[in-house]
Amino acid sequence: MKITMNPIGYFHTDETEIPRHWSISDERGWIEIDPQYIEGMKHIRAGQQIVVIFYFHRSDAFTKDLLVQTPPHKGRKMGVFSICSPRRPNPVGLSVLEVTGVRVNRIDVNHIDMIDGTPILDIKPYIAA
Amino acid sequence: MKITMNPIGYFHTDETEIPRHWSISDERGWIEIDPQYIEGMKHIRAGQQIVVIFYFHRSDAFTKDLLVQTPPHKGRKMGVFSICSPRRPNPVGLSVLEVTGVRVNRIDVNHIDMIDGTPILDIKPYIAA
Repeated sequence: MKITMNPIGYFHTDETEIPRHWSISDERGWIEIDPQYIEGMKHIRAGQQIVVIFYFHRSDAFTKDLLVQTPPHKGRKMGVFSICSPRRPNPVGLSVLEVTGVRVNRIDVNHIDMIDGTPILDIKPYIAA
Repeated sequence: MKITMNPIGYFHTDETEIPRHWSISDERGWIEIDPQYIEGMKHIRAGQQIVVIFYFHRSDAFTKDLLVQTPPHKGRKMGVFSICSPRRPNPVGLSVLEVTGVRVNRIDVNHIDMIDGTPILDIKPYIAA
């Protein structure tokens, strides 16, 4: 089964040093939504947290040796489904970001951990477990 | 830009009434991981919460009139990126599930909101915002 997706927009930032995870980031950027989806941005407001699902477009192809990896901030090898590495069977990333502003087809965000040009697949409301 | 993914496994459940959201679900099921990815399951343990990213394989194609939708439990039309509807530009779902057991290539989970046969795209550790 092959699943195909198209970006709903792209992420941009002027930052050059990108933190390894949103939970420790205070860097900023913005999401530029494809104009055909502007209506879907309704109810996204500054101050909210959103879940952003994106594509690690720069990740090399996944290989079997990456099933366990040693994250830079942990001293041991861990299973790929227990870590946030960008090198995963499906290179999908997830960040919980704070909306700092919304205008036309642009969503300004804080706590970013994606690089400039990252394709965005989906945005969802953040719901804590 | 076209992005292609392959399921890492499939979700199964014996339940026939599936709650609309994991946050209000007490139903159970299991994820059957493609055997080639078993090593990546290392460190997934009963009692943990995991983020499961999946594909709404039964959703009809997205159309422009779905950019705003009225969720069944809310009385008003909302932008698709502010709700959890399965009908979205990229039909990607996200659930926070509790692991109740792990054996070989199977992960038993509680609080499910996916239907039997759902293709799983990724599993990540749950990190609260």
